Amino acid sequence: MEFEEKTISRKEIFNGHIFDVVVDDVELPNGLGQAKRELIFHKGAVCVLAVTPEDKIVLVRQFRKAIERVIYEIPAGKLEVGEEDALQAAALRELEEETGYTTDKLTLLSDFYSAIGFCNERLRLYLAENLVKVENPRPQDEDEVIELYEVTLEQALDLVARGEICDAKTIMAIQYYQLLRK
Amino acid sequence: MEFEEKTISRKEIFNGHIFDVVVDDVELPNGLGQAKRELIFHKGAVCVLAVTPEDKIVLVRQFRKAIERVIYEIPAGKLEVGEEDALQAAALRELEEETGYTTDKLTLLSDFYSAIGFCNERLRLYLAENLVKVENPRPQDEDEVIELYEVTLEQALDLVARGEICDAKTIMAIQYYQLLRK
Repeated sequence: MEFEEKTISRKEIFNGHIFDVVVDDVELPNGLGQAKRELIFHKGAVCVLAVTPEDKIVLVRQFRKAIERVIYEIPAGKLEVGEEDALQAAALRELEEETGYTTDKLTLLSDFYSAIGFCNERLRLYLAENLVKVENPRPQDEDEVIELYEVTLEQALDLVARGEICDAKTIMAIQYYQLLRK
Repeated sequence: MEFEEKTISRKEIFNGHIFDVVVDDVELPNGLGQAKRELIFHKGAVCVLAVTPEDKIVLVRQFRKAIERVIYEIPAGKLEVGEEDALQAAALRELEEETGYTTDKLTLLSDFYSAIGFCNERLRLYLAENLVKVENPRPQDEDEVIELYEVTLEQALDLVARGEICDAKTIMAIQYYQLLRK
């Protein structure tokens, strides 16, 4: 059985700061004919499960325009141009900017796609241990309003149950932490 | 501290079959000025952690144009118009179309957003137990080429480790299964 869908032509719809949008006409395999594929191209991102010496998980509370809600998430940020080769540095930058913490112990937990059906956003999830506060941390992005929380695993699970944590990367990170602690 | 970003104006960029794209000009809270938000609106989807009586996880192997790769995922599908009130029916439809299985035991495991930074795609993850094969299952979508696999938890974890399972919903589902079995 063949799987690959060959691109016949591509229409560029949008060239944004966060993502690009294209629509491809594709040739389906196995003589199934043609189809259209609406696709989002994204530069990728890093996210950090940061655990304090007191075994608390560091969360940021922020407004998300896509769902018009304030929610709790793990620290995360988009990769900047050229950072594909410096993922750990990007994770450290986002950790410092959003939480004021840094670390000498960063472990890759997962490398995954957020919404593979239509989007190539690739995320790397790091575990950050041995957290220490930076004296003069890099400032937050100027268009971000963030509140910082440190919660126990039980509190994090309660936020998931109440829907105040409701994004895939944060739920995944908390699951990893549960599994690591077992 | 205020969090909400008020929409000043919205520019509609793309109206697709899978998603819409808009760019909002927003008023930041706390006098921080204005910013742009590039947003994807998606109708939402369901996905199913289907477990056979032999404790195997049902996976589908398919090509994903967004990353130009063939990968393993749990069965999933977009909501159709009007299905917001019939989520379980949508989950049963996707399960039957993609795997030929149905069930009388569907449990909601998670309700989450895939890529909350820029997209409102909301997914419901169901656990399907008591699987039985349907005699004449609904056919697959005509533009889908799917291969079916039934794997043990250990095999699923191996596929994750090898990067052949690499999407958030499937990794989350497998971790839920790990946690349920502990």
